[in-house]
Amino acid sequence: MQLTETHRPTLDQALEAIRTRAYWSPHPEHPKAYGETAPADGLAAFEALRDTRFDLDQPGTDGWTGGEVSPYGPELGIEYPHADPDVLLPAMRAGTAAWRDAGPETRALVCIEILARISARTHEFAHAVMHTSGQAFLMAFQAGGPHAQDRGLEAVAYAYAEQTRTPAAADWSKPQGKRDPLELRKTFTAAGRGIALMIGCNTFPTWNGYPGLFASLATGNAVLVKPHPRAVLPLAMTVKVAREVLAEAGFDPNLVALATERPGEGIAKTLAVRPEIRIIDYTGSTAFGDWLEANARQAQVYTEKAGVNTVVVDSTDDYKGMLSNLAFSLSLYSGQMCTTPQNVLVPRDGITTDQGHRTYDEVAADLAAAVSGLLGDDARANALLGALVNPDVKARLEAASGLGEVALASREVPHPEFPGATVRTPVMVKLDGARKLWESPDAEPAYLSECFGPVSFVVAVDSTDDALELLRRTVRDKGAMTVGAYTTSQETERALEEVCLDESAQLSLNLTGGVYVNQTAAFSDFHGSGGNPAANAALCDGAFVSNRFRVVEVRRQA
Amino acid sequence: MQLTETHRPTLDQALEAIRTRAYWSPHPEHPKAYGETAPADGLAAFEALRDTRFDLDQPGTDGWTGGEVSPYGPELGIEYPHADPDVLLPAMRAGTAAWRDAGPETRALVCIEILARISARTHEFAHAVMHTSGQAFLMAFQAGGPHAQDRGLEAVAYAYAEQTRTPAAADWSKPQGKRDPLELRKTFTAAGRGIALMIGCNTFPTWNGYPGLFASLATGNAVLVKPHPRAVLPLAMTVKVAREVLAEAGFDPNLVALATERPGEGIAKTLAVRPEIRIIDYTGSTAFGDWLEANARQAQVYTEKAGVNTVVVDSTDDYKGMLSNLAFSLSLYSGQMCTTPQNVLVPRDGITTDQGHRTYDEVAADLAAAVSGLLGDDARANALLGALVNPDVKARLEAASGLGEVALASREVPHPEFPGATVRTPVMVKLDGARKLWESPDAEPAYLSECFGPVSFVVAVDSTDDALELLRRTVRDKGAMTVGAYTTSQETERALEEVCLDESAQLSLNLTGGVYVNQTAAFSDFHGSGGNPAANAALCDGAFVSNRFRVVEVRRQA
Repeated sequence: MQLTETHRPTLDQALEAIRTRAYWSPHPEHPKAYGETAPADGLAAFEALRDTRFDLDQPGTDGWTGGEVSPYGPELGIEYPHADPDVLLPAMRAGTAAWRDAGPETRALVCIEILARISARTHEFAHAVMHTSGQAFLMAFQAGGPHAQDRGLEAVAYAYAEQTRTPAAADWSKPQGKRDPLELRKTFTAAGRGIALMIGCNTFPTWNGYPGLFASLATGNAVLVKPHPRAVLPLAMTVKVAREVLAEAGFDPNLVALATERPGEGIAKTLAVRPEIRIIDYTGSTAFGDWLEANARQAQVYTEKAGVNTVVVDSTDDYKGMLSNLAFSLSLYSGQMCTTPQNVLVPRDGITTDQGHRTYDEVAADLAAAVSGLLGDDARANALLGALVNPDVKARLEAASGLGEVALASREVPHPEFPGATVRTPVMVKLDGARKLWESPDAEPAYLSECFGPVSFVVAVDSTDDALELLRRTVRDKGAMTVGAYTTSQETERALEEVCLDESAQLSLNLTGGVYVNQTAAFSDFHGSGGNPAANAALCDGAFVSNRFRVVEVRRQA
Repeated sequence: MQLTETHRPTLDQALEAIRTRAYWSPHPEHPKAYGETAPADGLAAFEALRDTRFDLDQPGTDGWTGGEVSPYGPELGIEYPHADPDVLLPAMRAGTAAWRDAGPETRALVCIEILARISARTHEFAHAVMHTSGQAFLMAFQAGGPHAQDRGLEAVAYAYAEQTRTPAAADWSKPQGKRDPLELRKTFTAAGRGIALMIGCNTFPTWNGYPGLFASLATGNAVLVKPHPRAVLPLAMTVKVAREVLAEAGFDPNLVALATERPGEGIAKTLAVRPEIRIIDYTGSTAFGDWLEANARQAQVYTEKAGVNTVVVDSTDDYKGMLSNLAFSLSLYSGQMCTTPQNVLVPRDGITTDQGHRTYDEVAADLAAAVSGLLGDDARANALLGALVNPDVKARLEAASGLGEVALASREVPHPEFPGATVRTPVMVKLDGARKLWESPDAEPAYLSECFGPVSFVVAVDSTDDALELLRRTVRDKGAMTVGAYTTSQETERALEEVCLDESAQLSLNLTGGVYVNQTAAFSDFHGSGGNPAANAALCDGAFVSNRFRVVEVRRQA
């Protein structure tokens, strides 16, 4: 493979992008950019996978398992290899010495080739992501395709930069006055820790999976991919591509392997504490994330867990823009993003806007109207909402209307193509945010728990100061992937920044256009901060990659 | 203070040094470099501290405690403030916002000013380190002075580099085809995590303490320094200098504070789990290091624990140089370094040397003779050995001769100036390294435990291959800060490197001159690898600093 000629410019551009944090992406967002026949080819390739065995030719395969059902209704009918870890893990370890010896640049270029081949099949991946996560097609295409690939490439760039901070060799000469200097020849080798375990999630199998997968692989580790049992296909396809590229580049394909589980088997718990597993990446529930951190003590553990995202509404000079921006954020993928706002804090006495004063009740009603308007047309609603990913989300949605006064009721949206899809517009509930309801450490109002799905709370607080204090309490105790805020006051803006700096939360201010609080761009925006309970790592920064390998020094007398 | 003019060039040189890893230090090693009156001034300053109260003007002081006794005999008679953490910790938190707002460069320059003032008082620090650690004066001077300051500065350089990888601000413009681009203005702020706890050790209070202290301070955290109760003074002096510099630079002096304990109080355990403590640096026993990792879950925990260091002797073309180099390594500071070799593995059938074949017994006898020769003169022995740091070391030394055939017996060395000092030459014991004695997972021969102090084992192995396998087993299960080896075989050299790369150990090959396996140079050598059980972090690399702060992003519509 002509890896250097083909991919070194991409690596260099990625390195420049993470340094400047300007906009950059090598992966086109528009489906048309992939060629005229790509849509039909992608769909056909996806359909061809259905009702087949997805063979990966992995060591230790002791059976087949499957059972994915699309949130849009159809059973996928795909069976995946089930592995005996006592056979598979030693086989994965076998190739790590050669992978280490290849060095950071070759590893980066091989990773970029994997990403390039995935990119070329983005239409096929889009269908796989759509029919496992329930995302609408365009979102599955973009978030599951180019945006996920961007995050993978970003991790590769950080991994390369981190491993090459120390030179491969150095001559060291220490003066000794009139005597000869002391002289040593030193070599420095970035060595992976062993096998990394990437535990995928249901909603964003590629987007949340690629950073850990590529960060570990690029730093010299083998990677065992354990997908969510409802979202195996996109990661199985990824593993297959990775194995093909590794083999073609002369490495052991077993450096990347898939681990699927039989119903109820719970292999993540077993694999996570195996001594061979030295790194774990996980996106999912707080309960299992905390369990991993407490129990997988032999591994570096990177977790993204539950959080409660807040939007503080203090004042705005673009009321209409604010409403439409928030309405989109609350609707996209039925609020099933870890970055979707949940609590909209509005002062009880109302807010100042360019359209005059608006009471709390008016803000709630106007926001409800904005969501209704956005989702009034069924075709548009389907394109934005996607399907509910699982019955738990539906149950939470249905229970939410009992929590308080409903500002906006959820409605069923029929899907023209997939009658089995569960498509629902979001519910919006008005709740009381009086200080006495949340300031005691034991207080547990509904808005202080994550209610994952298309549920938001418009919370009446006594003042903007109270909103800031509730924001601080929420981030500190519950964690947050995002914070949004609207204010025209410099003082309030500064106070918001202070809270976010103190509690380590990522803040989006006064978004009224086509950028949304729940979206981040690789190479520029950090996803999470790693400094509050929602996640112990950010995507991507130095800390995300620097402990996946160690630098081993050999020094010799010169 | 003219911080930029004075210290920016030093920071730039440090940044260049960690990039090239060539030799560099701004802190002279030679006592004479500090001026003609410095030795007398330093001694006088140290003496003036004795039998006084060491006041730091800290909030929450609720009493005084002390009781250090020099390993050389004298009681220091110094009392230190004892703090109420419920008062001190909130006071330390108060200054962190201003410290964060100062930015990475100002923080780095303030840290360098602290180090410069410590450097100017190196003679005084040398006495303080000598009379708490038991190091001989010259070693206390060098390791406790310039080498410790180098490691502190190295941490400052890594911290600065890591915090400035992301720009302070960026403009982001995403093309939208024919529509206007999406545009955002983004700011990125490095924000410390809160309060860091640095738990000092008895043997190297400054050398092992400065990296964590300065890494945390330079990344925007407050730092609470909890010294070992037998080695308070060097760190109390450090805290005092830091508080003075912080105040003069316009920051809250409470950003650095001292926590001492009353006998038996065990405050490290209490402080370590306080919610305000977000970072912990610790050097000491494996038992307490493991406890911290398991229990201080609210904090990032960096530990250096016990390990078993090995030297593999396969062959040499400079037998005399090898023996004298090893003799020095085994003698320096009575083997009370975490980097001192413990197990010297020698094939039972002997080794090839430039002086012909040497049997295992001959190698043991020749090494014993080299140590005896090195330490035959009492003045030289005192200058190399220093004093035993505590009664536990003496007890281990005395017990060691019962473990096997004694190749070299320990002898008492009288100290001309301090008759109360416990000075002993090392003991060397011959042990059987047959495979059956160590290859079962339950096998626990003496050489597979750390025997901290002036004790080494010359272990007879069946072959060099066995030596490599025992090395691998030792590093993997027990950890190692250092590995040494002597071989003239390219093949063996490659095999040694493979073991060290696989198990993440730092390897010194064929050292026969004035560089020793137990010494590392800041800016060039890594101390530990962070990848085996002896330590979960290396001094210093990106991973040592990158999780002490988080980057908080604020984005606004442009």
